Amino acid sequence: MHATARAAMRSVVGPGHFRETDGELVPYSRDATPLFHARPDAVVFPADTAEVAAVLDIATRYAVPVIPRGAGSNLCAATVASRGGVVLVLTRLNQILEIAPAELLVRIQPGVTSAALADAAARDNLLWAPDPGSRTVATIGGTIATNAGGLRGLKYGVTRDYVLGLEAVLPTGEVIRTGGRLHKDVAGYDLTRLLTGSEGTLAVITEATLALRPAPATAGTGVAYFPDLAAAGRAVTAIIAAGILPATLEFLDRSCVRAVEDFARLGLRTDAGALLLFGDDGESDTVARALERMSDVCTAHHALDVTTAAEVAQAEALLAARRCALPALSRLGELTILEDATVPRPRIAEMVDRIDAIGAHHGVTIATFGHAGDGNLHPTCVVKSQDDADTIARAESAFADIFAAAIDLGGTITGEHGVGAAKLPYLTMQLGADQITLLRRLKTAFDPAGILNPGKLGS
Amino acid sequence: MHATARAAMRSVVGPGHFRETDGELVPYSRDATPLFHARPDAVVFPADTAEVAAVLDIATRYAVPVIPRGAGSNLCAATVASRGGVVLVLTRLNQILEIAPAELLVRIQPGVTSAALADAAARDNLLWAPDPGSRTVATIGGTIATNAGGLRGLKYGVTRDYVLGLEAVLPTGEVIRTGGRLHKDVAGYDLTRLLTGSEGTLAVITEATLALRPAPATAGTGVAYFPDLAAAGRAVTAIIAAGILPATLEFLDRSCVRAVEDFARLGLRTDAGALLLFGDDGESDTVARALERMSDVCTAHHALDVTTAAEVAQAEALLAARRCALPALSRLGELTILEDATVPRPRIAEMVDRIDAIGAHHGVTIATFGHAGDGNLHPTCVVKSQDDADTIARAESAFADIFAAAIDLGGTITGEHGVGAAKLPYLTMQLGADQITLLRRLKTAFDPAGILNPGKLGS
Ligand SMILES: Cc1cc2nc3c(=O)[nH]c(=O)nc-3n(C[C@H](O)[C@H](O)[C@H](O)COP(=O)(O)OP(=O)(O)OC[C@H]3O[C@@H](n4cnc5c(N)ncnc54)[C@H](O)[C@@H]3O)c2cc1C
Ligand SMILES: Cc1cc2nc3c(=O)[nH]c(=O)nc-3n(C[C@H](O)[C@H](O)[C@H](O)COP(=O)(O)OP(=O)(O)OC[C@H]3O[C@@H](n4cnc5c(N)ncnc54)[C@H](O)[C@@H]3O)c2cc1C
Repeated sequence: MHATARAAMRSVVGPGHFRETDGELVPYSRDATPLFHARPDAVVFPADTAEVAAVLDIATRYAVPVIPRGAGSNLCAATVASRGGVVLVLTRLNQILEIAPAELLVRIQPGVTSAALADAAARDNLLWAPDPGSRTVATIGGTIATNAGGLRGLKYGVTRDYVLGLEAVLPTGEVIRTGGRLHKDVAGYDLTRLLTGSEGTLAVITEATLALRPAPATAGTGVAYFPDLAAAGRAVTAIIAAGILPATLEFLDRSCVRAVEDFARLGLRTDAGALLLFGDDGESDTVARALERMSDVCTAHHALDVTTAAEVAQAEALLAARRCALPALSRLGELTILEDATVPRPRIAEMVDRIDAIGAHHGVTIATFGHAGDGNLHPTCVVKSQDDADTIARAESAFADIFAAAIDLGGTITGEHGVGAAKLPYLTMQLGADQITLLRRLKTAFDPAGILNPGKLGS
Repeated sequence: MHATARAAMRSVVGPGHFRETDGELVPYSRDATPLFHARPDAVVFPADTAEVAAVLDIATRYAVPVIPRGAGSNLCAATVASRGGVVLVLTRLNQILEIAPAELLVRIQPGVTSAALADAAARDNLLWAPDPGSRTVATIGGTIATNAGGLRGLKYGVTRDYVLGLEAVLPTGEVIRTGGRLHKDVAGYDLTRLLTGSEGTLAVITEATLALRPAPATAGTGVAYFPDLAAAGRAVTAIIAAGILPATLEFLDRSCVRAVEDFARLGLRTDAGALLLFGDDGESDTVARALERMSDVCTAHHALDVTTAAEVAQAEALLAARRCALPALSRLGELTILEDATVPRPRIAEMVDRIDAIGAHHGVTIATFGHAGDGNLHPTCVVKSQDDADTIARAESAFADIFAAAIDLGGTITGEHGVGAAKLPYLTMQLGADQITLLRRLKTAFDPAGILNPGKLGS
C-alpha cells in the first residue's frame, strides 16, 4: 500500500482509528470462515459517511483494495483481504437514528447489531424479523450485505424483504440514496435489492431504512422426534402442503442433537434420528391451532414423539437447542466446516440421503441441521485437528459433491451464507458462464477500478 | 428499419406473426397512457424463448430498437416506440408450465394474464397475491417488469416479493436463468429483483418462477365514510399504529365516490367527503376481530358511518367500487390523466391537502383514490375534450407540482405505475444526478448497443 494513501487515510479517520501494526492486523486477517485468512495492510474505522467516502476516494486514486466489514461473522470468507488493502470496519456507525412506529420502520446505521435492533424494536412492540443465529454480534450492514436469513424465514422471509432504502457510498466516492421510507416505490432500477446481498463488492452501506412489523402477541413452539432426517423432511413437506406457513420449522439430525444435549443439557431425546422444531406466532388461538395441526401432521408422518411447549421458558429452551447447534458441534474438534446448500422442500429427504452417501464415500462424518421450512441445510463437518490435512481435503471434496448435488436437485450452493471468496469457484457451476460475465459487467458498472472487496462476488 | 433485419425477423417468427402494415401497427402505437404515441416499424409475436433470442440477436446486429410488450396496460408510456423499432409482443408465450403446491410455486410463461394465474392457483387452494386493478388483461411479464402493486399490497407486498426466479433473454441474445425455486438463494447478485421493475429495458422475461401462498380461509370487508380524505388518512395511520396490518385499506375521495356510484349504482353514500374500504383475510375469527378493531378505530377517528359487509356478495360489491374507480372517472371526459405519487402513511392527509391546493392553483379538478395503506395515491384529472390543449397543459403543470410535493414529503414520483417515457423527465429530481449516471452504467452493462426499449428507464 502506497505511503501517501496510508497517510491520507490516516488523516481522514484520525490516527486512533487507523491500525497498521502486526498485532492490530491479526484479528482482521480472518472472519468466521475456517481455512481462509490473509493479512490486510491496514484497518480503518471511519466515524461517518463522509469519512467512508473520503477513504474510498483515496482507495480509488491509489488502487487500494477496500474490504467493508461489520462483525466479521460471515461464513464464506467475504471479509478476508485476499488481495491485501484496507479493512473498512463500520462498527463506529452504530446509532439507531429513528424508529417510526406509525410507518413501521427504523432508520439505522450499519454498525448496530441485529440483536440491538430487535431489542429496540421490541420496546415499541415491534418486530425486527430477520434473526440469523449470529444476531448478538452480526451488524445490520453485514446482515444486509449478505441478505442474511434466520430461524423465522419461512413465514417472515429474509433480510431483503425488509430493506426499504439505503444510503451507500460508491467505490468512486459518490453517496447515493436508494429507495426510501416506502414499501411501494418503483422510481428507477431496484438498487436497494441489488445492494442487498452484494457482499461489500458494489458499495458501502452507511445507512438503512428497514421495515419492522407489529410484534406478534404470542408465540408457541413444539418438538417432534423422528426415526431419521428423511422422515422429518417428509413431515415438513406435509405441513406446508396442509396450507400451514409457520414461523419456525428447524431440524437437527442425530449427531447434532447429541452434540447439543452434551453441550446444553436441555433434556433432549438423543436416541431418535432427527428432531424437528416447529413454532408459530400471532394471536394465541391461531398459534394454538397451528401447533395442534403441525403436531397432527408429525404424528401422521411417523413421529416417535411430539410435544408442544406449554410455557415460554420451555419454548425458549427448544429454540436455544437450535441456536446452539453450531457452537455445540464446534466443541467436537478444532475445525468446523459448515455449508448451506439449499434444495426445494420436497427434495430435502433425497438431499439428506445424498449427503450421507457423499460423507460415507469420502470417509467423513457430516452432521446436518438447518432451516427445514426453506430447504436450507447446514451440513457440517467437524475435524478433530487443524493439522489433519488429509481429512480436511476429504471434507472439501465432500462439500464440492454436496454443492453439485444441491444444483442437481434444483437447489443452490448457498441459501444464506453467501459466496465470498469461499464459494466463488463454484459459482459458474450454478449460474452458467453467460451470467458470470454479466455479473462482472455489473460489478464494473459500480466499481470501474475494481477496488471494492476484490476476489469476491463479481470477480 | 433495415430491410435485411425486417426479412430476418419475419423468417424467425414466420410471416403470420410479423406485422407491418399501417392498420396492424396502429394498436401498438400506444399503451394505456394518454398523450403518448409513436408508430413502431413492425410488431413481432415470437412463439418461444429461442425466437425471442433470435429476434434480439438480429436487433443488436442491425441496431433496431426492441420494445417488449405484454397487454400494453401500463400507465407510464413504457411500451411506446419512442424511437421506432419493433414491438415484441409476448402474448403467445401463454402457458402455465407447472403449479407445485408442495413448494408453493408456479412456473409460468410471461403472456399469461394475472387473473388467469390467480384462477389457476385458486383451483389448488392457493393465492397469487399481486392483484393490479388491470388483472384481467395485464400479463405476468408486464406485471413483473413493472413490479406491479395492487389492492392487497399492505399485507401481501408487491410483485417483487413473489418472484423467485426468471428466465430472460439479454439484448445480446444470451439466455440467462436467475434465482430458481427457492426463497433463500444468495448465489450471485440479485438479478431476479433487478429485472423485476426494469420495465423491459434490461432483458426480455421469457419464463418466471413465482411464489404462491396458501389461500386464506375467509375474507371480510368494511366501509367507513369520513367528512374528508384527510380524516380518512388519519384513521389509516391510526389503524397501522394499533398494530393491524390488514389486506386492504383503500380510499376514494368525494368525486371518485360520485363517479363510481353514477357508473355502478352500488348504493354508496355520495354526501361524504371520503370513503375508506378496509378488509382482511385469514381464519374467520381473526378476520372478524380485525374488522371490528378497524371499525372501532374509524369510529374513534370521526367516521360518519361504519359498516362491515355481512355477506360475500356485499364485500365483493365494495371491492368492485374500488376497482372501477378509474373506469368510472374515465367516463367523465375524453382524457384521463392518472398519477401515482406515494408518500409515507402519516403524510397522506398533508399530501391530500397539497394536491387540492395544487389543483386549485392550476385551475383543474383532481379526484384522488388509492391504496391508502401504502400511502399510494392516484390523483386523477379528467379532461372533457382531447383537444383542450390549455387544460391539458395546466393538468401537466399540476402533476409536475404533485411530484415535487411527493418528494418533498419523503415520498416518490411513482409507487407502482413506473417511469417509462412519461416520468423519465422527473427521475433526476427523485434520485439525483449520481444515481442516474449509475443507472445508465447498469443499463449499458446489460445492453451495450442500447436496443432494448430506448428512451425509457436507464436512458
Ligand atoms: C454462529 C453463526 C451463526 C450464523 N447464523 C446465520 C443465519 O442463521 N443466517 C445467516 O444468513 N447467516 C448466519 N451467519 C452468517 C453471518 O453471521 C451473517 O451473514 C451476518 O449477518 C453477517 O454480519 P457481519 O456484521 O458479521 O458481517 P461481516 O461478516 O463483517 O461481513 C459480511 C459481508 O458483508 C459485507 N459488509 C459488511 N458490512 C458492510 C457495509 N456496511 N456495507 C457494505 N458491505 C458490508 C462484507 O464485506 C462481507 O462481504 C452465522 C454466522 C455464525 C458465526
Ligand atoms: C385500469 C388499470 C388499472 C391498473 N391498476 C394497477 C395497479 O393496481 N397496480 C399497478 O401496479 N399497476 C396497475 N396498472 C398498470 C399496469 O396494468 C400494470 O403495471 C400491469 O402489470 C402491466 O402489465 P402489461 O402486460 O399490460 O404490461 P405492458 O404494459 O405491456 O408493459 C409494461 C412494461 O413491462 C415491459 N414488459 C412487458 N412484458 C415484458 C417481458 N416479458 N419481458 C420484459 N419486459 C416486459 C414493457 O416493456 C413495459 O416496460 C393499471 C392499469 C390500468 C389500465
